Amino acid sequence: MIIQTGLVGTPKHELDTPSLLVDMPTLDRNISKMSSTIIEEAGVNWRPHTKGMKTPVLAHMLLDAGAIGITCAKLGEAEVMAYAGIKDILIANQVVGPRKIARLVNLCSRADVIVCVDDIRNVNMIGQTAANKGVTVRVLIEVNVGMDRAGVEPGEPALELAAQIAACNGVEFSGLMTWESHALTVEPIEEKKRVITEALDRLTETADLCRSNGHTIDIVSCGGTGTYWISAFHSGITEIEAGGGIFGDIRYRTVFGADLEYALTILSTVTSRPDATRIICDAGKKAMSSDAATPEPIGIPGVKSVALSAEHGKIVLEKEANDPDVGDQVEFVAGYSDTTVVLHDELYAIRDGVVEAVWPLPGRGRVQ
Amino acid sequence: MIIQTGLVGTPKHELDTPSLLVDMPTLDRNISKMSSTIIEEAGVNWRPHTKGMKTPVLAHMLLDAGAIGITCAKLGEAEVMAYAGIKDILIANQVVGPRKIARLVNLCSRADVIVCVDDIRNVNMIGQTAANKGVTVRVLIEVNVGMDRAGVEPGEPALELAAQIAACNGVEFSGLMTWESHALTVEPIEEKKRVITEALDRLTETADLCRSNGHTIDIVSCGGTGTYWISAFHSGITEIEAGGGIFGDIRYRTVFGADLEYALTILSTVTSRPDATRIICDAGKKAMSSDAATPEPIGIPGVKSVALSAEHGKIVLEKEANDPDVGDQVEFVAGYSDTTVVLHDELYAIRDGVVEAVWPLPGRGRVQ
Repeated sequence: MIIQTGLVGTPKHELDTPSLLVDMPTLDRNISKMSSTIIEEAGVNWRPHTKGMKTPVLAHMLLDAGAIGITCAKLGEAEVMAYAGIKDILIANQVVGPRKIARLVNLCSRADVIVCVDDIRNVNMIGQTAANKGVTVRVLIEVNVGMDRAGVEPGEPALELAAQIAACNGVEFSGLMTWESHALTVEPIEEKKRVITEALDRLTETADLCRSNGHTIDIVSCGGTGTYWISAFHSGITEIEAGGGIFGDIRYRTVFGADLEYALTILSTVTSRPDATRIICDAGKKAMSSDAATPEPIGIPGVKSVALSAEHGKIVLEKEANDPDVGDQVEFVAGYSDTTVVLHDELYAIRDGVVEAVWPLPGRGRVQ
Repeated sequence: MIIQTGLVGTPKHELDTPSLLVDMPTLDRNISKMSSTIIEEAGVNWRPHTKGMKTPVLAHMLLDAGAIGITCAKLGEAEVMAYAGIKDILIANQVVGPRKIARLVNLCSRADVIVCVDDIRNVNMIGQTAANKGVTVRVLIEVNVGMDRAGVEPGEPALELAAQIAACNGVEFSGLMTWESHALTVEPIEEKKRVITEALDRLTETADLCRSNGHTIDIVSCGGTGTYWISAFHSGITEIEAGGGIFGDIRYRTVFGADLEYALTILSTVTSRPDATRIICDAGKKAMSSDAATPEPIGIPGVKSVALSAEHGKIVLEKEANDPDVGDQVEFVAGYSDTTVVLHDELYAIRDGVVEAVWPLPGRGRVQ
């Protein structure tokens, strides 16, 4: 992990491109807004997902803003965060196979790691490895409340797994986790609320079923950026995982309805002006993903279309214009932060148009 | 650049996942096929594009197979390749702005770098910087033959730029470059041939126009993996840039009709079997891109659908089946190699099911 300091103080417009930027005042406002909705208004814990951030710097900022811990998607990311001093980490995913389970158990000496499970054979392997090492791994049952990806069904199937886990050495059953992702794009808002309520009822009723069968349920975890402002207020939820919203990208804001500001941008340079309506720049799919939402150029009036190829961005204007010209910069709002950040080796923190810090992204590529 | 040797000799099925694999015998056959079509049958030069490869190892293999040099998309990639001993490098893109032009001129001390241009102000800046350093940068005019991205129009506009370049110090006008990408998905094959012929006629007629006005045209460059087997046979073309085809991904083979084999795969592990028709694995969009073509699982009968989220792959089966189970591996053919390779830090070379080498990908993230 190399911290670059040579560029601190450089005006943004002097940076080479393509570069990944985060505007600090906007980021601060998004963090404040999420933390006050979740912690103050809803009164639940915040365990923000850091899978879109890839840097411990941002994770520590969220802890400073009141988060109780963080969420990771992969063991490799959790290792990066634990080695940067973060103690309370939920891996909201299954950790499978002897190599990864050995790493998971080793990581428990550096942090309190909680992992999601939905298969008793996997739990047994984790428990056995942990018991051999003399540690205990906390586990949450992933419950499928309608997304239909991983997870056991709510009610009896979850209770059955809870009972099996309770009989295992080396693991401690700590609660339930879900991701109500099937509600993300439901409209109108009343219908979205109804779908979320129905989904989270399944989760909290399962928690109650487990409790009434003698299991302790400390954690009932859910909520992404596209749902947290509804899910956080659902009775029986103990914590919210929404984290990517700190970047407030186009997907979160316009597709999923999150009321957050655009903080993450990609700075690019115009490399060609073949005609008066066509602007070609140096940021394509390898600098900003377009799989989930197309990035939007800032401050260019009359944009007809934006298209990305691997290495080029192409902006077509409604009317002829001379600006921006070859060599000028164009800044794009990230379409989807999660698949954009992983394309870069560093993130430039910008305040008042000047580089405040350059952060490495050591979680990038840690997909194992 | 760290060469890993610890895993050499490991059976593929013992690798942790997600991992990026290339099957060496298949790769060798694809390289042979491309080189024999281009060099032997069409009798033109081969300058394979390495923007999808990201490692000098593969570039050197292509030179060993008869390529005269390589093509890069970005200056940063060209630096990686030049520092690994590759001498003849075409940057098939505009290099814009004083920082990059300084790097370009410095790079000329390590390699013979050719760069594409379509704007005389950019040429002047390159020429001035090169002349101050006492070097000459070779330039090709990028010509727009129908793709409508960057490039000047064929005929008089190209001739006019050629004349302006000829009057510049520090640069040497060496020919023309195009990318007939608008022909990629044209069907049927006769119509595709017609579109390519029409496009490349514009290019070669422009070359003739330049020659008849006293300019030397050494290079007339075109042809990607989706067109090369037609474009290479077009009269007046001197070299073909197709390179990504060595991986023979789904996009190239099924969308663009390239007759090459699947060499690039992503190895993943089943992390959840929530029901008998649903297989969840650990390779999502951060391990294999799905922006251009969806990866396909190998050897799983009756696949109804494949969907990727950021960190998960989800395979739905037509009929209930117990295999593959949690902990088993699933190997996917890459949908689009170009946007998949950049997600990884290393590439595992596999021969007869065993790791032959682990190659770092130092070109990854070199988007500047």
